[in-house]
Amino acid sequence: MNASEFRRRGKEMVDYVADYLEGIEGRQVFPDVDPGYLRPLIPTTAPQEPETFEAIIEDVEKIIMPGVTHWHSPYFFAYFPTASSYPAMLADMLCGAIGCIGFSWAASPACTELETVMMDWLGKMLQLPEAFLAGEAGEGGGVIQGTASEATLVALLAARTKVTRRLQAASPELTQAAIMEKLVAYASDQVVATLGTTSCCSFDNLLEVGPICHKEGLWLHVDAAYAGSAFICPEFRHLLNGVEFADSFNFNPHKWLLVNFDCSAMWVKRTDLTGAFRLDPVYLRHSHQDSGLITDYRHWQLPLGRRFRSLKMWFVFRMYGVKGLQAYIRKHVQLSHAFEALVRQDTRFEICAEVILGLVCFRLKGSNKLNEALLESINSAKKIHLVPCSLRDRFVLRFAICSRTVELAHVQLAWEHIQEMAATVLRAQGEEKAEIKN
Amino acid sequence: MNASEFRRRGKEMVDYVADYLEGIEGRQVFPDVDPGYLRPLIPTTAPQEPETFEAIIEDVEKIIMPGVTHWHSPYFFAYFPTASSYPAMLADMLCGAIGCIGFSWAASPACTELETVMMDWLGKMLQLPEAFLAGEAGEGGGVIQGTASEATLVALLAARTKVTRRLQAASPELTQAAIMEKLVAYASDQVVATLGTTSCCSFDNLLEVGPICHKEGLWLHVDAAYAGSAFICPEFRHLLNGVEFADSFNFNPHKWLLVNFDCSAMWVKRTDLTGAFRLDPVYLRHSHQDSGLITDYRHWQLPLGRRFRSLKMWFVFRMYGVKGLQAYIRKHVQLSHAFEALVRQDTRFEICAEVILGLVCFRLKGSNKLNEALLESINSAKKIHLVPCSLRDRFVLRFAICSRTVELAHVQLAWEHIQEMAATVLRAQGEEKAEIKN
Repeated sequence: MNASEFRRRGKEMVDYVADYLEGIEGRQVFPDVDPGYLRPLIPTTAPQEPETFEAIIEDVEKIIMPGVTHWHSPYFFAYFPTASSYPAMLADMLCGAIGCIGFSWAASPACTELETVMMDWLGKMLQLPEAFLAGEAGEGGGVIQGTASEATLVALLAARTKVTRRLQAASPELTQAAIMEKLVAYASDQVVATLGTTSCCSFDNLLEVGPICHKEGLWLHVDAAYAGSAFICPEFRHLLNGVEFADSFNFNPHKWLLVNFDCSAMWVKRTDLTGAFRLDPVYLRHSHQDSGLITDYRHWQLPLGRRFRSLKMWFVFRMYGVKGLQAYIRKHVQLSHAFEALVRQDTRFEICAEVILGLVCFRLKGSNKLNEALLESINSAKKIHLVPCSLRDRFVLRFAICSRTVELAHVQLAWEHIQEMAATVLRAQGEEKAEIKN
Repeated sequence: MNASEFRRRGKEMVDYVADYLEGIEGRQVFPDVDPGYLRPLIPTTAPQEPETFEAIIEDVEKIIMPGVTHWHSPYFFAYFPTASSYPAMLADMLCGAIGCIGFSWAASPACTELETVMMDWLGKMLQLPEAFLAGEAGEGGGVIQGTASEATLVALLAARTKVTRRLQAASPELTQAAIMEKLVAYASDQVVATLGTTSCCSFDNLLEVGPICHKEGLWLHVDAAYAGSAFICPEFRHLLNGVEFADSFNFNPHKWLLVNFDCSAMWVKRTDLTGAFRLDPVYLRHSHQDSGLITDYRHWQLPLGRRFRSLKMWFVFRMYGVKGLQAYIRKHVQLSHAFEALVRQDTRFEICAEVILGLVCFRLKGSNKLNEALLESINSAKKIHLVPCSLRDRFVLRFAICSRTVELAHVQLAWEHIQEMAATVLRAQGEEKAEIKN
């Protein structure tokens, strides 16, 4: 495919993408396929000769789409949102074309420098303490990781390196293994200090945890993967109070801040981080690496390679503006409260955790079995899609506001549908009980 | 931005991308900027109000492009190639639109199933042993990782889990730390068993290493990050002989197989892998997870989230065909031999490692200082871009065939330029010697 065919096919693909997202409401949110559906539909080996673009795009509708769970459907209320916005997609096209691998400043200066500045922009939106920002001086700073798991692992390895060095300095007779045996990582039942857990979006109180970590010389990593985006709104910022005690902090703009996956934002206070990953072969050295002016991000992450992901942040932040992003967060929170209000009006149901952001945990008053049957009937009907969670051994349904295009009408339709399904499972339960009685 | 504006802006971006890549030869391959160039060019905080797309795309040319190292310029001969092709870019647009997170089969069945089948396609192109393929039965199989670093870490953790369990079963009295202290990871000076090292593209002989690992019960991970793509050509497949002794194998189609970053292909023989990463909270469970028919890829990798990356493989394999991909590899290898022949004709130079694939290691006969001066003058002129390596304490220049669009004429021009630069540094050296003499 040459540039001129790409011009043509690229524009067709732009229309396909726009058609897909404009029409997504008409597609069944959860697919009908059974495991192994795809293999028989495509050849067992790659073709020897080139095929046409037409043949491939036809197969997208015939083979791929029937097996897609439509995460951006306004009837998708499962897991947590994954971001999707047009500005991010445009930036991703540019990112793909530039196609640089930003492991060092020299490998593409713009890639490194825009990342540093975008992480400062975002840090300021969140009102992070100065110590987390790169600023002019270059103390502390942010880095884009692929996922929150990677950010947590990076924080853990950095913490381990730091404490190992401290212990080795204090007791040179200790072996590496003896030190390892002494190390303790403290975590709650939802892992590391978390703001907005996956199960029920609960919050650890950093003002309680933070001072203890500080006093005991513990590395405090704070994960706000989902909830972090909300902290750009002043009315939710208090949930982040105490972050000044943290050594590292991260959240995922790729969840709720309209920056398409992957973009997990991580900040560290000091450059303790880089010691754990330092990699300096001759072929990666460049003349500015020790200037103190720039960041070689390969020392800040597990992989060597990295894409130009800050372009997505730049496009999204500028095309929405902070006010646009705040409005987006607020709309989702309003919709979750609207759903909460609907649930509270129906005495057959109960709300299972305080609704703070965009997640509502609810269930039918009654047994786990009853609620499992409810979820099963909802997800079998495939009009909407939900997943459950377990809260203190109770089987609970999660209703997460996810799609960029979800409106009050979708939430109301979803609730009516849930009520219908509930009536059916309650009737079935009633009949079962009656049978047992007879 | 709504769908209709995206249709317009998306098409403009397609043209921008095509213009950029068609005109890339006219851009200086390595930028002129100094560290810290970008920060003064953009505001210190994100805008409150939305900005226009025009304003952003103007800034791309004004602020971003002057700081980009153009990895896809035909005058870029540094590091190793990073893949770039139009079919992969089209697939990436679709991937962004679908925007599903494929951590489990249920999260998007097509995402999981296409990955399994594409990894089989690719495994067959490489003539990997059956034990690495998923096939109908689902024994063994492939997974797309982000980078070779991640694949290596996954292999290492899986190996550690496996041996720890074996030792704990044999000696239940041993603590975790005591076991850790006993573990040994064997590596050469280029890390794990490597086919095609970064410095000079050298190859470990798996037929020697493999049987020893097999006999001693060691986990053998084989990394062919760059070179792996070449094994789709029968004439290079012998370099992979012995892979049948490996427990895990990976290479990066995102380097040399026209699948844009990120796409690191990893295969494992058995499902030993999944035990190390098993994560099964209620909200990720689905009814088919224990069917044996499908793969929940979150157990095969460090992150939870993952994009629909197999679409890129599908588009590229189909639009090039195996023959097209082979032709692409062969052209690059021919160009590196053409460059090698030019170097050998000039008695001032020497070739420093056997040229097997697309990398030529060469230097001026003389001191490291002389060659450092040569590289410095080449990279200061910025007509072409190279990086060095160190081979047995000798400073060596690497000439890697990288760009998809590089032709013999570019290689010849590059060589003439290197010769000119060499003449200058040799003259300077001569004058310096004469001065010392006087």
